[in-house]
Amino acid sequence: MIPIISIVGKSDSGKTTLIEKLVPELTHRGHRIATVKHDTHGFEVDREGKDSWRHKQAGAHTVVISSPNKVALIRDVEKDFTLEEIREKLIQDVDLVLSEGYKKDVQPKIEIFRKEKHKELLCSKEDHLVAVVTNQSFKIDVPCFDLDDMVGLSDFIEKRFLSSKVEEGISLRVDGKRIPLKPFVRDFLTHAIKGMLTSLKGCDKAKHIEILIEESDIQSSVL
Amino acid sequence: MIPIISIVGKSDSGKTTLIEKLVPELTHRGHRIATVKHDTHGFEVDREGKDSWRHKQAGAHTVVISSPNKVALIRDVEKDFTLEEIREKLIQDVDLVLSEGYKKDVQPKIEIFRKEKHKELLCSKEDHLVAVVTNQSFKIDVPCFDLDDMVGLSDFIEKRFLSSKVEEGISLRVDGKRIPLKPFVRDFLTHAIKGMLTSLKGCDKAKHIEILIEESDIQSSVL
Repeated sequence: MIPIISIVGKSDSGKTTLIEKLVPELTHRGHRIATVKHDTHGFEVDREGKDSWRHKQAGAHTVVISSPNKVALIRDVEKDFTLEEIREKLIQDVDLVLSEGYKKDVQPKIEIFRKEKHKELLCSKEDHLVAVVTNQSFKIDVPCFDLDDMVGLSDFIEKRFLSSKVEEGISLRVDGKRIPLKPFVRDFLTHAIKGMLTSLKGCDKAKHIEILIEESDIQSSVL
Repeated sequence: MIPIISIVGKSDSGKTTLIEKLVPELTHRGHRIATVKHDTHGFEVDREGKDSWRHKQAGAHTVVISSPNKVALIRDVEKDFTLEEIREKLIQDVDLVLSEGYKKDVQPKIEIFRKEKHKELLCSKEDHLVAVVTNQSFKIDVPCFDLDDMVGLSDFIEKRFLSSKVEEGISLRVDGKRIPLKPFVRDFLTHAIKGMLTSLKGCDKAKHIEILIEESDIQSSVL
């Protein structure tokens, strides 16, 4: 699961600037970063008159523009996606997601705070605050980094969010809904399926097993 | 699997215009359409100075802009994606993908041909041509539709590409690779897993079952 961190802060605290400084440091260390910007007012990205713009105007739900070095996508949604939904539906091939804003989301947060702009922090540990980037000293139970200390901040992010290996264990979704599994059931399912697969060619050293079962209406009422 | 159709034709044959007429007819019939435009020259979609533009300039691999009714994504790629890769990595929640161009891709193709512009068809059945939209009569072994016959063309698309229900059966991927399953193994796995799940809450009427097993390096060498 790709980790998500929200860069939060009151208005004019420098969230975009922090992301502009943090992304190159993390990229330099070999991590691929996705960023997410929340835009409550709607936005225009494509340009009037372009073919892709014409496709969208004609009512396409999703428009993709693909080139040898870059891909863009614009799609309709029925509601504001949470960061988890954005990760699930849109983000691939990166090591970390940094969002700008999303202070109400449940993901871990790094707050940027400048003493000359505001008086109090926006978030507390209850809001999943994990660090503060600031030019003020706080008595607070999370690490604080200087406004320019991208090395320290990146060390912290690497240690806390980027060192974990692939998530282990088994997950089960039925008709799109995640089914919680008790430890006994987790173990039983994992071992039973791995046992069934051992004799299949190419499955003896399986580390990532993905099984999809789709039923037609008729079949599932019979079975 | 979401079906893909490429709208192809020589230059200036009216591919974008055909998509502009076809998308509303299919949308009106209740289908959600994604379109894909191939841009060999690269493109700019975001606007200079915007926060999301600044994220990308800072080196983010992927940038997402999210709003309550629309989401946009811009990401780096290392090579030109095929239509299949675009479907797999980017497209969700639609019933059909219509691409503009992609005449070298292996997906089924509908060619638009205007007699006043060109002399010969671009594609043949060997190129996976499934229909022609034209103002010329052709002796050809695929259906031809008049330039304005979006009803006939949509009937054809619905019948051929949109009538199939959800793909049935079981699929298995191990470490990203699809493992072919013989009929006996398919049946055995399907029934064994369904059997194991019957007593779990919420699984009794399962139509779509998804199981993921992830192993750490250590675990998998022990098991």
